[in-house]
Amino acid sequence: MGNRIDLNCDMGESFGVYSFGSDEKLMQYISSANIACGAHAGDPHVMNHTVQLAKQYNVFIGAHPGFPDLAGFGRRMIECSPTEIYQMVVYQIGSLQAFCTIHNVSMTHVKPHGALYNFAARNQEAANAIAKAVYDLNPKLILFGLAGSELIAAGQAIGLQIASEVFADRTYQPDGSLTPRSEKGALIEDATEAVKQVRDMVQHGVVEAVNGEKIAIEADTVCIHGDGNHATEFVKLLTDTLVDAGIAIKSIGEQ
Amino acid sequence: MGNRIDLNCDMGESFGVYSFGSDEKLMQYISSANIACGAHAGDPHVMNHTVQLAKQYNVFIGAHPGFPDLAGFGRRMIECSPTEIYQMVVYQIGSLQAFCTIHNVSMTHVKPHGALYNFAARNQEAANAIAKAVYDLNPKLILFGLAGSELIAAGQAIGLQIASEVFADRTYQPDGSLTPRSEKGALIEDATEAVKQVRDMVQHGVVEAVNGEKIAIEADTVCIHGDGNHATEFVKLLTDTLVDAGIAIKSIGEQ
Amino acid sequence: MGNRIDLNCDMGESFGVYSFGSDEKLMQYISSANIACGAHAGDPHVMNHTVQLAKQYNVFIGAHPGFPDLAGFGRRMIECSPTEIYQMVVYQIGSLQAFCTIHNVSMTHVKPHGALYNFAARNQEAANAIAKAVYDLNPKLILFGLAGSELIAAGQAIGLQIASEVFADRTYQPDGSLTPRSEKGALIEDATEAVKQVRDMVQHGVVEAVNGEKIAIEADTVCIHGDGNHATEFVKLLTDTLVDAGIAIKSIGEQ
Amino acid sequence: MGNRIDLNCDMGESFGVYSFGSDEKLMQYISSANIACGAHAGDPHVMNHTVQLAKQYNVFIGAHPGFPDLAGFGRRMIECSPTEIYQMVVYQIGSLQAFCTIHNVSMTHVKPHGALYNFAARNQEAANAIAKAVYDLNPKLILFGLAGSELIAAGQAIGLQIASEVFADRTYQPDGSLTPRSEKGALIEDATEAVKQVRDMVQHGVVEAVNGEKIAIEADTVCIHGDGNHATEFVKLLTDTLVDAGIAIKSIGEQ
Repeated sequence: MGNRIDLNCDMGESFGVYSFGSDEKLMQYISSANIACGAHAGDPHVMNHTVQLAKQYNVFIGAHPGFPDLAGFGRRMIECSPTEIYQMVVYQIGSLQAFCTIHNVSMTHVKPHGALYNFAARNQEAANAIAKAVYDLNPKLILFGLAGSELIAAGQAIGLQIASEVFADRTYQPDGSLTPRSEKGALIEDATEAVKQVRDMVQHGVVEAVNGEKIAIEADTVCIHGDGNHATEFVKLLTDTLVDAGIAIKSIGEQ
Repeated sequence: MGNRIDLNCDMGESFGVYSFGSDEKLMQYISSANIACGAHAGDPHVMNHTVQLAKQYNVFIGAHPGFPDLAGFGRRMIECSPTEIYQMVVYQIGSLQAFCTIHNVSMTHVKPHGALYNFAARNQEAANAIAKAVYDLNPKLILFGLAGSELIAAGQAIGLQIASEVFADRTYQPDGSLTPRSEKGALIEDATEAVKQVRDMVQHGVVEAVNGEKIAIEADTVCIHGDGNHATEFVKLLTDTLVDAGIAIKSIGEQ
Repeated sequence: MGNRIDLNCDMGESFGVYSFGSDEKLMQYISSANIACGAHAGDPHVMNHTVQLAKQYNVFIGAHPGFPDLAGFGRRMIECSPTEIYQMVVYQIGSLQAFCTIHNVSMTHVKPHGALYNFAARNQEAANAIAKAVYDLNPKLILFGLAGSELIAAGQAIGLQIASEVFADRTYQPDGSLTPRSEKGALIEDATEAVKQVRDMVQHGVVEAVNGEKIAIEADTVCIHGDGNHATEFVKLLTDTLVDAGIAIKSIGEQ
Repeated sequence: MGNRIDLNCDMGESFGVYSFGSDEKLMQYISSANIACGAHAGDPHVMNHTVQLAKQYNVFIGAHPGFPDLAGFGRRMIECSPTEIYQMVVYQIGSLQAFCTIHNVSMTHVKPHGALYNFAARNQEAANAIAKAVYDLNPKLILFGLAGSELIAAGQAIGLQIASEVFADRTYQPDGSLTPRSEKGALIEDATEAVKQVRDMVQHGVVEAVNGEKIAIEADTVCIHGDGNHATEFVKLLTDTLVDAGIAIKSIGEQ
């Protein structure tokens, strides 16, 4: 299967005096940065700085829109209509685009955040609203979504390039969905195992589900977590292993 | 002197369930709409609707950035560094630009709001920060500022087209500044007198200061207030009078 | 059955420059004011003013906590844990209590707002969280909730006095629940009919459900809407009719 | 002079997922905790947790109201009227009082935060507004303010007990004011020197101003910074030194 993979990481999630994540340390390892847009996290200063940082490391830049809920970090579902979702995504992409413009870099992708990401994975109307917002703003943007999700389907339906996202440290159900975090065995805590799962997904297009079955999976981009204690160590191990296996770390948008 | 004038009005200052101003009624009389960007007022739904409304009435669209202070409606000075001001203006213009993009209309100008407008009128660093934000995003945007202010000077210095704003209902000091609202005689409450002041400014390039002296004033655009009880009646009287006097109501950006 | 009824109305839902409702006009007709606490609406200035107004008209004061979502006016469900709900209710009651303290009036009740009210009507954990917050702060507070709801049950279980709330302008299902707004026939648009429904509920403890069946209902307090065009006319008609029928308008907390 | 001193520290300044300060580590060394009230920092969860923590360590609890500006952490001056300041302080004290009530502890003091603290130090109207808010809510509360400031004067004038605050790591001008941070020599970076300054202020009621002059100073409470890298080490050194010198660490409110 593939000999290249994109590594994406949520970035720019600090706010005011509050620091979050390890943007500076991780930027050198990843190929795509999803930058918060001031709704679930981020502020104009942080957005400006993060765009500069991504530019410096030649990392591709995406907007990372989320529910406007700083108190809940965009992780709480807010009951919104498709129209509300469409408009909040337009607003947030626009605000990040401005920082790309002043730094003379292109925005390449959009990945929804947290509860919005999860909602768009399973709800067709929300997925369509997000895909349409992205398309209406710039049909060349790549839409990132959970592999096999409604969001991926919505992106394809409207004519966007999509990137199917997989997770190194989450286990999969036989139907290709993620094991809910509330269930036992949802997380892969052993780093070596997590790295192996990514390698299998990239090279062979398969993942071993929790019942032992090998299932097919699209893997265009791997989600790198930025806020754990071992985030940097893990991404280093992952990139070393992938590169040794002949897999290039490249943004999905790169030729 | 001039046989044309721009009439601008702050628009899109509703928020959520809260209604503000008389956007639908006034849109037909004005030539430039300054649309709030979600910081001092406005939200994605309101921004979307207001851009649509301006497009429908062929009114030119400008961004109306303000201090991020919904509780104070952007009317309270917040001590910000020039860098903070630069970044908040970039963010806000970008968010409105997105709504212009999806509705396939151009943004033509930028006018700061409230306390930010006043601060930029007298503070050179703030004025430069705003002018640079506008220029860096799009050097074709027209910068609106108080006639004779630091903001106008900053816009000219960086190479932006500027629009000198005058007020129908405010009196002027001999040095061309506005009489502070806290002083007696700051407001012109008689509509006929206010209309006459505009006509003199447009046709003759002069205004009678509070001491009776006639002083020169640049008048590219007149600020129309959208939130008073008699807003609609006044703008109707003003436009009727101007048109009768052979003065065309045209956006500054219009050829 | 009863010869008295409480009329309650949501008040203090303005914010900054934004006005909402008709507090001054309605205050003279009602017996209980539910005052927003700065989360879904209201701000310190509005809270202070509304407490003063209620005091002036001898209207009993209650806290009206809601989801912290000004953009959605607390009408959008936000996925919160019972602990988050408990703590947001504690915070909001405390903030209103302070304004009662400085004006030397007592707080008598608590009524959750919007999506929080609806969630607490059907979700036992949320209902218990709210009831416990109220009880822990002051066990003498009266808890307002939808007649027959989980919130009423939770209040009774923890030992609070409760007030079962009924609606003049909403129709009821045979099981005593409200007809969802999304369904046809959910609203009673004829004022006379709405007034009659209240009278029947108060005097006879019954309401005619949508299928024509007469069902029993507890009616301690009637919700008066403050934001419609005819809010004042309706409450005047309602109070006149009730008083003519020998029913006193009295706060539930009044002896 | 004195053989006791209060050590106060700003606490509860985390927000949502964002962590700030070292509350758990510092709580054991201090005698008074100033807890943020959800305006410049803090949220209901953080407030609840911080009150619990202070109770556990027998630390006296105070409200720490600030400008409602999370983005600026309350460090930016916002132009507010005395009435606005009065009402924001009432609101914030009330919200913290609620968490004290549910945990059955008393609030003992109030210390304004950041830009509000600095404004109240030099502006009599703001100082009076804060003092009146505190007094109106509970005349037994102790008002913390900069030694020699307008806030201390306002507290005394209205009849509140006051606590004059001094700084270990700031230098003083001959008139008793702090050397502005923008000037060279504003900070004492040597820990031993900072500790010595505190000891002199407590034991002898004097501080050596930047010109070498020894000036009299009231020192009821010392501000301990919670967010530096060496915060814990410094407070340990300070408390050890004070205790060795026979000075007890006691809240100002303690008998």
